[in-house]
Amino acid sequence: MTVQTLHVALNERSYPIYIGGDLSLAEYLLPHIAGHQVMIVSNTVVAPLYLARYRDVLNEAGKTVAECILPDGESYKTLESLNLIFDALMSNRFNRDCTILALGGGVVGDMAGFAAASFQRGVHFVQVPTTLLSQVDSSVGGKTGVNHPLGKNMIGAFKQPKAVLADMMLLGSLPDRELSAGLAEVIKYALIGDEDFLVWLETHMTELVARNPAKLAEAVYRSCAHKARIVAADEHEMGERALLNLGHTFGHAIESYMGYGQWLHGEAVAVGMLMAADLSARLGWIKAHDVVRVRNILRDANLPVNVPDIAPDDFLTLMGQDKKVLEGRLRLVLLKRIGEGVITREFDLQLLMQTLGNKTPGVEVI
Amino acid sequence: MTVQTLHVALNERSYPIYIGGDLSLAEYLLPHIAGHQVMIVSNTVVAPLYLARYRDVLNEAGKTVAECILPDGESYKTLESLNLIFDALMSNRFNRDCTILALGGGVVGDMAGFAAASFQRGVHFVQVPTTLLSQVDSSVGGKTGVNHPLGKNMIGAFKQPKAVLADMMLLGSLPDRELSAGLAEVIKYALIGDEDFLVWLETHMTELVARNPAKLAEAVYRSCAHKARIVAADEHEMGERALLNLGHTFGHAIESYMGYGQWLHGEAVAVGMLMAADLSARLGWIKAHDVVRVRNILRDANLPVNVPDIAPDDFLTLMGQDKKVLEGRLRLVLLKRIGEGVITREFDLQLLMQTLGNKTPGVEVI
Repeated sequence: MTVQTLHVALNERSYPIYIGGDLSLAEYLLPHIAGHQVMIVSNTVVAPLYLARYRDVLNEAGKTVAECILPDGESYKTLESLNLIFDALMSNRFNRDCTILALGGGVVGDMAGFAAASFQRGVHFVQVPTTLLSQVDSSVGGKTGVNHPLGKNMIGAFKQPKAVLADMMLLGSLPDRELSAGLAEVIKYALIGDEDFLVWLETHMTELVARNPAKLAEAVYRSCAHKARIVAADEHEMGERALLNLGHTFGHAIESYMGYGQWLHGEAVAVGMLMAADLSARLGWIKAHDVVRVRNILRDANLPVNVPDIAPDDFLTLMGQDKKVLEGRLRLVLLKRIGEGVITREFDLQLLMQTLGNKTPGVEVI
Repeated sequence: MTVQTLHVALNERSYPIYIGGDLSLAEYLLPHIAGHQVMIVSNTVVAPLYLARYRDVLNEAGKTVAECILPDGESYKTLESLNLIFDALMSNRFNRDCTILALGGGVVGDMAGFAAASFQRGVHFVQVPTTLLSQVDSSVGGKTGVNHPLGKNMIGAFKQPKAVLADMMLLGSLPDRELSAGLAEVIKYALIGDEDFLVWLETHMTELVARNPAKLAEAVYRSCAHKARIVAADEHEMGERALLNLGHTFGHAIESYMGYGQWLHGEAVAVGMLMAADLSARLGWIKAHDVVRVRNILRDANLPVNVPDIAPDDFLTLMGQDKKVLEGRLRLVLLKRIGEGVITREFDLQLLMQTLGNKTPGVEVI
């Protein structure tokens, strides 16, 4: 399988994403390891499957390797768990020339990245995302951090990796639900910026769900390329980058209501995107059948398409906690048309309340 | 008293330091407050003395003000205390347009700054340092962070403030020991880069110890100007900036041995600088009477000039924990001459051991 390389252009912090299957670690990992000390941060699910291969290659290359295995799950994405990484770095006497290697999904990547941003005020960072979601989402953009009990991702840093290895082989052990959650983010890129990609996804969704490695690699490449273009133009999320939050304000509210860890992030975003489509249709920007199209592609990716039974007023309160509240005014990402997202404060509250009350968007007539 | 403004030049992150007495908050503080929400971070000693004035001025300007009062002292410079700031921000529903105002010494500034760097991946930050040490040290350079049980300042970020208000009026309540600790850092700038400044300090040390506001302001201005030049050339401490660590490797070892909080940071740095001078003399770079001169200016500033009774081997181990260890080789800041610091790995270990064994540098004949 051909390895594709995507260069994320951020001036002196530019880096490559290698996308392929069974990537050669000698060729794609070792050149990006600075210093002699490598801390592999992983979790209790991923480490038994894949960690030994990375440790062995690094050891053979003469590196000192230590490990920090975190508990698995979003509920452990906390300052307390982050401190376990600092403890491991300090007790192994790691210095500021070390490299932190994240081997895991988004939670591991976010925590390892924040640790790399903060340890001695910044050390090297390399990412090996082991879920589809983290391959298409966390591997571009440099957002790292942990949750606060009162809100997700409230504490963190922007930290760019030295390299990302997106290896389709690692997706073989991914549970079906997590594969689908990753596909939700893939669909997002199509919805906000690329209708051709949506057509491609509609054509190949069966192969993607069946984990065809070449098709998955193509989806990862197109998703990362899309995100990289946006991030390069807006590294610190002042403008266009907020488009990437399509479905996230609705989705965060759902996650918050359900309790983190009940719904996967991608599942909540899927329903959130469908709600954004529903509101966009109520505003007259897209057609009712476009909402059906969004519902269908999500359903084909085995994602949830019905909204949890949250009273509209409660839903709004949950959305009000979101950090996308600027000066007290809610800003949403909606769809001007399929393939064109828009960041807007211009929506009628009544229409929003109708959307919040519709538990089966794309089914009922708007 | 005239207000002097020093501009720290760091491209888009440049900011002013206002140096004076009883600074007008309307003129110097309010223009630098972004957004409507201000979190004043202070400690239990400073808050009762000064916080009300800042809160009132901000309230009168229509800002929403909340407070986070931390326990006082280096021993509380931890991730746990940092989390108190995040708790306060979240429970008061602060958004990403808020400003964090640090009102306190170095510990408050380091923690408030790291919180400002990390909260929502970065919010605005304004510093009002209330100690001489923090006025000359923490107000330039953007170093923020907390300690780890196994090492100082191991977790943090580079975060530049929007403005710094160095108000000599705030030094009136400063304990004598802390004034002297600040003078240690002032003396440091003279030793590493400005012999004329050392002569000025030798001339005016009596007035500085007596807290003459105009003389203190002059010392703060010259110190900050010196640090600002170095930091502007080397923001992320890759080279020249390490000169600012004169006395710190020895000093950290002393702090670590004594237990944080027993010796003030400036006291440990004072003895550390004297040890650096001692080693520089043993290397033949400065004269024995230069070491006496360093001892005398420190003594005139009421600083300790004798080394704690630590066995040389233990001292070296304590130094080995220091983050200035690069690839396992110890790098020290020494003096090529009075007024010229140098970063070097070129020193004889035997001479270093002699320095570590000399508990009264500047007294015994080298």
